[in-house]
Amino acid sequence: MPTYHIEMMEGRTVEQKRKLVEEITRVSVEVLGGSPEYVDIVITDIKRENWATGGKLWLERE
Amino acid sequence: MPTYHIEMMEGRTVEQKRKLVEEITRVSVEVLGGSPEYVDIVITDIKRENWATGGKLWLERE
Amino acid sequence: MPTYHIEMMEGRTVEQKRKLVEEITRVSVEVLGGSPEYVDIVITDIKRENWATGGKLWLERE
Amino acid sequence: MPTYHIEMMEGRTVEQKRKLVEEITRVSVEVLGGSPEYVDIVITDIKRENWATGGKLWLERE
Amino acid sequence: MPTYHIEMMEGRTVEQKRKLVEEITRVSVEVLGGSPEYVDIVITDIKRENWATGGKLWLERE
Amino acid sequence: MPTYHIEMMEGRTVEQKRKLVEEITRVSVEVLGGSPEYVDIVITDIKRENWATGGKLWLERE
Repeated sequence: MPTYHIEMMEGRTVEQKRKLVEEITRVSVEVLGGSPEYVDIVITDIKRENWATGGKLWLERE
Repeated sequence: MPTYHIEMMEGRTVEQKRKLVEEITRVSVEVLGGSPEYVDIVITDIKRENWATGGKLWLERE
Repeated sequence: MPTYHIEMMEGRTVEQKRKLVEEITRVSVEVLGGSPEYVDIVITDIKRENWATGGKLWLERE
Repeated sequence: MPTYHIEMMEGRTVEQKRKLVEEITRVSVEVLGGSPEYVDIVITDIKRENWATGGKLWLERE
Repeated sequence: MPTYHIEMMEGRTVEQKRKLVEEITRVSVEVLGGSPEYVDIVITDIKRENWATGGKLWLERE
Repeated sequence: MPTYHIEMMEGRTVEQKRKLVEEITRVSVEVLGGSPEYVDIVITDIKRENWATGGKLWLERE
């Protein structure tokens, strides 16, 4: 509370995730207040065969 | 915008997903208007041990 | 099973929703198989102050 | 209807999931009414590199 | 952690929600372990014009 | 892509949301790369009767 769910294309490194959750938490506390310990973040890695934009899977777009 | 999240039992082929996102996007634009490029679709493949109906995991139902 | 969650900007009519769920269900059964009664669809109407693209709320984009 | 989505740290056994969905369904029917067959439950197993609290991934917290 | 998202048809009382979250939390701790303070539950009340089964909005089904 | 879903207790101002989506988008592009236009953010305002921690609705916790 607040809770963030982040959907991103698979392939990001743990280092990128580590940095991202640190920054998102900092920004969240700055803007919304509260303690960092109340900020929960869940990341979902999406496979290219499971994300589509404009009617085409990303597997086929690139 | 709009965004579709589709949960389905695992095991569908890429060809089925390819066809599904094409059709969903077409239907979405027909009914809601807008450009196909604004239609995002995310598919989640659910394992049979992770979906339950009537208090029973699908792993055990079939 | 399958389950569809659709996020759309608020303001669509019940008639549009009625047509959309009918078409999505038809397409889903055609491509994935199964009975229409197993297709669940949940729509979420999003307010313009609650959706952002490119760092800007849609309230401010248009 | 109702539908439950449960996010839990990965590593739980099928036996725990089996027990959990049985109990959640029983409780749901007791409190909200309806038939067990209308209770759907989807579990998501989250990896420790994909859940953060207080700005730190659980991979690093323990 | 764990986190429960519950979608239910609108119209349930606060008393039903109060009872439901108490029971879900108790069951969760019994089966998965951990402390009750780590169990988060978010309820979403769905309008009958926003839920469809079998291609028909619940607004029209009953 | 990426897409952020943020659940927060209701009562935040449009100005706070405006600032939050600006900052989240900036941080996202810095850490994950890509263009700001591909960052989508959806906020859900949760009522105190719909969020529980430790088995108690927030309506009753404070």
